[in-house]
Amino acid sequence: MAARRGRGGRRARIADRGPANPQLPFRQPRLHWLPVRAIPDDGVEAIHEASLKVLRDVGMDMLHLEARTLLGREGADVDPDSARVRFDPEMVTELVGHAPRSFTLHARNPAHSIRLGGNHLAFAAVASPPHVSGLGRDRRTGNRDDFRQLVRLSQHLNAVHLHGGYPVEPTDLHPSVRHLHATHDLLTLSDKAIHTYSLGRQRTLDTIEMARIARAVTDEELESQPSLFTVVNTSSPLRLDTPMIEGILEMSARNQPVVVTPFTLAGAMAPVTVAGALVQQNAEALAGIALTQAVRRGAPVVYGGFTSNVDMQSGAPAFGTPEYLQAALVGGQLARRYGLPYRSSNANASNAVDLQATYESMFSLWGAVMGGANLVMHAAGWLEGGLRASFEKMVLDADLLQMICTALEPPATDGGSLAVEAIADVGPGGHFFGTAHTRARYRDAFHDPLLSDWSNFETWDEAGRPDPARRTETLAKELLSAYEKPPMDIAVREELDDFVARRAREGGVATDY
Amino acid sequence: MAARRGRGGRRARIADRGPANPQLPFRQPRLHWLPVRAIPDDGVEAIHEASLKVLRDVGMDMLHLEARTLLGREGADVDPDSARVRFDPEMVTELVGHAPRSFTLHARNPAHSIRLGGNHLAFAAVASPPHVSGLGRDRRTGNRDDFRQLVRLSQHLNAVHLHGGYPVEPTDLHPSVRHLHATHDLLTLSDKAIHTYSLGRQRTLDTIEMARIARAVTDEELESQPSLFTVVNTSSPLRLDTPMIEGILEMSARNQPVVVTPFTLAGAMAPVTVAGALVQQNAEALAGIALTQAVRRGAPVVYGGFTSNVDMQSGAPAFGTPEYLQAALVGGQLARRYGLPYRSSNANASNAVDLQATYESMFSLWGAVMGGANLVMHAAGWLEGGLRASFEKMVLDADLLQMICTALEPPATDGGSLAVEAIADVGPGGHFFGTAHTRARYRDAFHDPLLSDWSNFETWDEAGRPDPARRTETLAKELLSAYEKPPMDIAVREELDDFVARRAREGGVATDY
Repeated sequence: MAARRGRGGRRARIADRGPANPQLPFRQPRLHWLPVRAIPDDGVEAIHEASLKVLRDVGMDMLHLEARTLLGREGADVDPDSARVRFDPEMVTELVGHAPRSFTLHARNPAHSIRLGGNHLAFAAVASPPHVSGLGRDRRTGNRDDFRQLVRLSQHLNAVHLHGGYPVEPTDLHPSVRHLHATHDLLTLSDKAIHTYSLGRQRTLDTIEMARIARAVTDEELESQPSLFTVVNTSSPLRLDTPMIEGILEMSARNQPVVVTPFTLAGAMAPVTVAGALVQQNAEALAGIALTQAVRRGAPVVYGGFTSNVDMQSGAPAFGTPEYLQAALVGGQLARRYGLPYRSSNANASNAVDLQATYESMFSLWGAVMGGANLVMHAAGWLEGGLRASFEKMVLDADLLQMICTALEPPATDGGSLAVEAIADVGPGGHFFGTAHTRARYRDAFHDPLLSDWSNFETWDEAGRPDPARRTETLAKELLSAYEKPPMDIAVREELDDFVARRAREGGVATDY
Repeated sequence: MAARRGRGGRRARIADRGPANPQLPFRQPRLHWLPVRAIPDDGVEAIHEASLKVLRDVGMDMLHLEARTLLGREGADVDPDSARVRFDPEMVTELVGHAPRSFTLHARNPAHSIRLGGNHLAFAAVASPPHVSGLGRDRRTGNRDDFRQLVRLSQHLNAVHLHGGYPVEPTDLHPSVRHLHATHDLLTLSDKAIHTYSLGRQRTLDTIEMARIARAVTDEELESQPSLFTVVNTSSPLRLDTPMIEGILEMSARNQPVVVTPFTLAGAMAPVTVAGALVQQNAEALAGIALTQAVRRGAPVVYGGFTSNVDMQSGAPAFGTPEYLQAALVGGQLARRYGLPYRSSNANASNAVDLQATYESMFSLWGAVMGGANLVMHAAGWLEGGLRASFEKMVLDADLLQMICTALEPPATDGGSLAVEAIADVGPGGHFFGTAHTRARYRDAFHDPLLSDWSNFETWDEAGRPDPARRTETLAKELLSAYEKPPMDIAVREELDDFVARRAREGGVATDY
């Protein structure tokens, strides 16, 4: 049916409101709906059994002696002549069973601490792209200036609950000291929870210490209060590399959360079928999760799923596809089978903030939300298959995430909300605009989006047909200009500065490049 | 994580493939997942009870004596001095209980007949906008030429399962004969199922007769084989107008499906709360549905939901909002409570095929699919809050609908799909590209989208950074050029031509404009 459109619309409201657009308060949404069961339970069991079979008969290459020794002590079959570890199914099940169902990831600002597990959702900023675009400038190599601006924008956006890593690689910081300066930026420009890269033992230890300093807690308190997390990607198929394993060894030993995420691209590093890719995802995830529990029973760990497909004619990876959505949903079924928090992503393969970026992201977010994800990585700012961070995409995503947050709040069905009296008062043929029921509620009745322009055609036309893609750029600048640096105790700041200065003087972490 | 991108990508494939893009075969998807329960069952009951209270205490204005008489005979309280009818709750429940849970809507091509109900989904083309844009031309008033082109595009797109009405108003056809010529176009340019507007008794009778002729069936066969449907919109709040009631009287009497859809815009023609708007939607829908069953027990009828919200500062209607999504989901819960097929929509309020149109549509589609909708009206081509049909939006929507169709097919979890042997053969550190398992499956392994460009940045950049919004225009032209007029028996065609010629000679339906 055709709907009449009011005059003026969106434009007038934005002018009224001033440059800063409204945001919802910082709050983790909860999924009150049941997550989707995309396949029947026996299908989930079939994937589970197949993955245990893979772990038992093929095993994983675990490129770290200490990890192999630990797993051998748990009863795994460790090949003395190679890195191969074959996992006894009962051992895997037993170990995985020790992982907690949920836990809190502490931010240095307690108001920004995150619950991971149950029906809680957390949205992490984009992480790790080598390139960046936006704020009026074309695609460029990642650098510390854009890195800091993306950290500021992530801090300012309430829909972004935590950092997922470096929102773009600050490639102008030398790899030997990058983790020191970048983590210093994350901890001082923001007070949200942080991530550390599993790039070898020393970097992990440095960043754990920085998180401890920033939160002004003792080593013991840090152990009882997870304060930073790491993502461990397997090297699919069926391999866990040395730096990643060192991340598990150090983080799990100190009770810090590990998100084990195989990147199982169906048709490339994983079988060409969705179920086959999920078998491999599940095998690799379980192996990593088992290792965390071999290191320390009860260490917090998240089941990560990142199964998508390639374009079989070009080999290009695709995201936000139907297969991606299916894998995200079934990944959640698997994680819940093990009673583990679940990680998914907001992914797309587009080269611009355009229709494709939008619908691929919406499919990814649909998969994450309906899949019961607890942690959505790259929730804001991911473009170009993860090769680029985008300020504009971060704004678009924040808008989508805020809409999802509002949508997930079940509408009230109390007496006043049911409005029986209001309907009776207005009666057939009337209008609700001026009624007491409406006047009492209209200010907060509906979600106020950042981007949507609901003006009618004539108003929109007269305004020069504004493109929402361009408005994301204006908004990114406005939001950044409203950023406020979060306070930090001066003694804490000095300790943090001193630590970074000392470790930088020492040369950080030796690299051969 | 960053993903490496293959060379060439999408562009090369499209060139290989020729101008016609691949489509999935015509097939209704089925929702194998449980629809979302966005509110608990007691909330659904509260809305149900409140709406029955509204129908009992306030009632509806039913602007047709015959309808009032029929409902009076069923036990409704009919005010002799006005159009007001107050409904006994038990009477409503009893009448609604006679409606079938599902039925088939017959197209003149049996391969295009549609199942409505159960877990079947059907996607209808955009209906009723007064304006149109696309194919390289700016926004213009609806006309028969664009009308026909949109009918052809709807016929050619396999993701469009039926017509929802006139894809744009052919305003250059006089209203007295418009239904004759427009329905003639629908029945001859397409062989998919059709809709008739409830615009008074005679138009309904004319189009029923035309559907009968086109299907070459007798009156009796038509009655046992629903062959066209109508949407009945209430005039919210709480009124059912004369022409709409005449649609119910004629269609239900002949066992033709009626989709009763209140357009309950929260804050305008309905209460400002989602629950309140749903109470009113439910009251109006139940009243209309009860009337269909008063006319004829067992007549096919669909529960329609179209609750959205206005922008409270401008009065402009909004679609694809969080409130819209919630209402779509709860609407499905209500329809299932009554055991009725459910109708939702693919709506957005954007003025262009842009980011906003895309994400608002995705929220609407998410609401429809997860809400368990059986009939998605305006599934392809709706723009500008329903004021405009867009060729380009129809292509974008068809792409989204095809992706949804693929995603809704549960992935296989049989032995071959689980790929345990393939994983063992490849082993740690290997690659699946050339394996037998991959080679046997890669051609049909993954969904092939119409729009998505998965080429890497360099390739995309060299190609002039193509915009998917522009590609929709190219695709619309390509798809239209591949349209083939469906065959029609010559005798049937002559009978149809003769009928239209005769009724046009007779002046069609008298109008005072």
